[in-house]
This record gives sequence, C-alpha cells and structure tokens, in this order.
Amino acid sequence: MMIDRLVIIGVGLIGGSLAKALREAHAVGEIIGCGRDPDQLQLAVDLGVIDRFDSHVSSAVKSADVVVVATPVGSMQEIFAQMRGQLAPQTIVTDVGSTKQSVIDAMLHGYGSLPPMFVPGHPIAGTEKSGVAAAFSGLFHNRKVILTPLPQTDLAAVARVGEMWELCGARVNQLSVSHHDHILALTSHLPHMLAFSLVDTLAKLNDSAQMFQLVAGGFRDFTRIASSDPQMWHDICLNNRSEILAALTNYRQGLDLLAKAISENDSDALLEIFTRAKQARDKFIQ
Amino acid sequence: MMIDRLVIIGVGLIGGSLAKALREAHAVGEIIGCGRDPDQLQLAVDLGVIDRFDSHVSSAVKSADVVVVATPVGSMQEIFAQMRGQLAPQTIVTDVGSTKQSVIDAMLHGYGSLPPMFVPGHPIAGTEKSGVAAAFSGLFHNRKVILTPLPQTDLAAVARVGEMWELCGARVNQLSVSHHDHILALTSHLPHMLAFSLVDTLAKLNDSAQMFQLVAGGFRDFTRIASSDPQMWHDICLNNRSEILAALTNYRQGLDLLAKAISENDSDALLEIFTRAKQARDKFIQ
Repeated sequence: MMIDRLVIIGVGLIGGSLAKALREAHAVGEIIGCGRDPDQLQLAVDLGVIDRFDSHVSSAVKSADVVVVATPVGSMQEIFAQMRGQLAPQTIVTDVGSTKQSVIDAMLHGYGSLPPMFVPGHPIAGTEKSGVAAAFSGLFHNRKVILTPLPQTDLAAVARVGEMWELCGARVNQLSVSHHDHILALTSHLPHMLAFSLVDTLAKLNDSAQMFQLVAGGFRDFTRIASSDPQMWHDICLNNRSEILAALTNYRQGLDLLAKAISENDSDALLEIFTRAKQARDKFIQ
Repeated sequence: MMIDRLVIIGVGLIGGSLAKALREAHAVGEIIGCGRDPDQLQLAVDLGVIDRFDSHVSSAVKSADVVVVATPVGSMQEIFAQMRGQLAPQTIVTDVGSTKQSVIDAMLHGYGSLPPMFVPGHPIAGTEKSGVAAAFSGLFHNRKVILTPLPQTDLAAVARVGEMWELCGARVNQLSVSHHDHILALTSHLPHMLAFSLVDTLAKLNDSAQMFQLVAGGFRDFTRIASSDPQMWHDICLNNRSEILAALTNYRQGLDLLAKAISENDSDALLEIFTRAKQARDKFIQ
C-alpha cells in the first residue's frame, strides 16, 4: 500500500476526487476526512469517498502517513496552526492551493516553521462545480500537478507526493514558488477575473435577462469558469495579489491596443492581433 | 419543396451547414454554391454539400428562389453590387452576418436600394472552425436565429426565411437592427475581443511556450473562440465599431473595479462581484 492512512482536510471537488482516484488505484488504506461541515463529511462517507471523518484537525492528523489540505487557501493558516505539535516526524503534509507563496507563508505563520516534510503542491485541474458530490476519479487524468518544494524540503517526501499524483493519472512538474505564482496568475487567475467580470458586466445591465437568452455556445464556454466558487476565488485574489494585479495591468494594455485599433479602423493591427492569437492557440492548445 | 433553387454565396462553415441541414430536411431542390475560390467550391461539390457552383454572383443569383450570403461581412457590399439588375422580383435575399446595420448599409450602397425581398438575418451559431469541411447539419439545432426586417421588408419573405431556419432546427426571433447590434456586441463580439486579447497577451511573453503547457481545461474553454477566423473578426470589428467600443469601455470599467477591489484587499467587493456573476451564469445559462 502506498499510503496506509491518508487524511484529507477539505473533502470537496479536489479532495474528494483525489480520494476516489487513489482508492481506484488501490494506493491507499484508510481515508479520513476532516472539515468544518459534518453534513458534508457524512455525505462523503455515504458516497464512499472517505472511510470516516474527524472534525478536529489536531486529532485527525495524528498517525497520518500523508495529510492533504484541500480547502480554500484563505483558511490554510488556521488549519496549519491546529497541526502544531500533532504531526509525527514522518508525516507528509501537502496541499492543493492555487497560490503557493501564500500557502508557504500560512505554514510559516500558522505552524510556526516550514517542516521538511511539507511539500507545497497544486493540481491544475478542476471544474466550475464544487463539493464532494461533484468529485470523480478521472479529474486528474492527464492533468499537470506542480510541486514547489523549498530548499529544506525532504526529497523523499517530494518523490512520494509526486508518486501519489501520478497514481491519479497526473503528470508532475516542479517549479519555483515565484514562477508558479507568476504563470498561474496569467493562465488561470487572469482568465477567471475576465470571465467573472464579463458576466458581472452583463448581469448589471437592464436588459440582462433578454441578453443572456441570446448567447451562443462560445459565450457558454467562455464564461463557464465564472460559475466557479466565489469564496475560493476571493481567497486566490487576496493570496496572489501582486501577480494578479500585474497580469491585469498587462492584459489591459493589450486590450487598450485592440480598442485603439478598432477605434482607428486599423485593419493591419486587427488582423495581426487576431492572427497571432489564433496561431498561438492552435499551436499550443489542442 | 420549400425552396426549389437555393444559392449560397460563401460555402464555409455556416453556408455549408445550412445547405446540409436543408438537404436533410428535404426542404430544398437544387443548391448552387458561389464564391471566389473554385477549389473550395469543388470541395463542397465533392462533399455533397452543394450540387454545382458558379463563380459569378451575377449569373448565380438569376432565377434563384432564395439567395443566402454567408461571407465575412466586409465583402458583402461588393457581392450586393454584383446583384444589381440580376434579381428576379420574387427572389429572396438574406444573409448570416454578425453585424446588421453594416449589412443593411452594404445593401444600400452596393445594390443601390433596400429591396423588400431582402431579409437581414443572423444565426447565432458557429464553432471556432472555418471552411466547408467543418460544416455539419446539426449546427443550428436549438440555436437562435435573429431576423432584423426593415419597415419596407416583405412580410411573406420574412416568414419564409424564418421557416427556412426553423427547418434547420433553429428558433427564430426578431429584433430591431440597433438592438441586435447592441446585444451581439456585448454577448459575442466583446467575449471574442477578450479571448483574442488574452491569448495574444500571453503569446507575446518570453516564456509563452512553457506557459501554454501548464494551462488547465478552463483556459482551453475560455480561449476556444480565439481560434476563430481572423478575417471574419476583423470585419465584425470594423462593422460594429461603435457598439464594440462602447462594450469594451463598459467592460473595462468593471475590470477596473475588480482590480481596485483586489488592490485594496476589499473582501466584500470581491465576494459581491464573484457571487453576482456566478448567480447570473447559473441562472441564465444552462
């Protein structure tokens, strides 16, 4: 058995899907859920996603082989604080947060130090749905998982967390913390801001109901991510602020150039922007 | 037979899919393609999408029952000019352009008048692909088609064009020209600008290749429309300029508010924007 006792703190879409995938891979013995909402945890038991649950982080993590924190990043410092003095030396702690510097800060301030067995991680996977009922074992199949180990991180712990994700069908990469936060701001956080802002812009108009009735499939796809969990994205915004603000500034400069080209009837500039974008997307994203 | 002789000018994704859908509905006798590229038209014949083709608009439209112009909107004025003196009085002309005032202007300036048998139309359907090889008969199934008849438009012609689209599985609405151009600027043209601009912003960065390797499904969906035809979108931009510029201005104000909320750590504002967006999307778009 790869992991005898796995503790998942936050049994939602990501935590629940991880549990299902590891179970399917026969890679785990007992799975213990932990969280604030007993009803959701009972639902996770009823769905067969976890074996049992413990509402207290401090007792849940005792004698765990691996602890995965899968809550919104804004709640992690408090969770790490509850682990103080409770972790066995060999217990690996990892997380699935979309922002990495802030999670490391949360560990430092919550737990009080950066233990060598702490492996910051981020599976680049998800849907616009939330909650354990939306979890499915294939969520990480062919998806990237980024680990951002620190200089003091135990290499065997990094390897074991990587192996755990590979058993879920994911491909594991390592990046520096700052590079992760930079790239994710541009490829994930920025698009979510744009989609939330677009839907909100339309929702505030007087004729929004009629407008939404006339949208095409492109709009549906474009705004799918605007159905994501508001609390989760609130936390991401406040935990990767400077990178997201820089990405927004960069983006608005591009949008200003496009608006200028439209305003000035600049055919060449328009074709150049649209062609470059189409070529990049067709080349890189299939 | 609903239409004995159908002429489609521009046998691409939309024109080709219309031909296929009408054929499948046994609603059409002969389908004649017309366009500038004989190779594409021959391909359309080989694929069984059209029966034959004529490279000249002036001869193709003679003795047609219905003429559908399905080219990028920037080319329509020249096409309408070639119809001068060639249309039988009962021949219906309609189009599929994404901008309606500009198509009406193109008719007025190209053809020289706004004939009562001209029915401006717009099927709100498409994919990011182009060309007749991408055409499929189900493209318009359950999609909206908007007709924007003018005061002088023949009511029977409007009804017949509506019936043609309903036979393709579409639901037909009527809107005023200005309302169409306003709504489409917000729900279709604006999202395309945002997606093109996002991919272009990333494509211009030094580490864009690595960045694109790390994108998730949300990015793929969000940017799908950035793979659309650059020439088509160039034409749309220049043919719905003022509405698109107004939509961009409106959007940028919303994006500025979001950036301000992030910058000022304004939790309440962030949750409000994200929640309003999620609720609007979950309510209106399923």
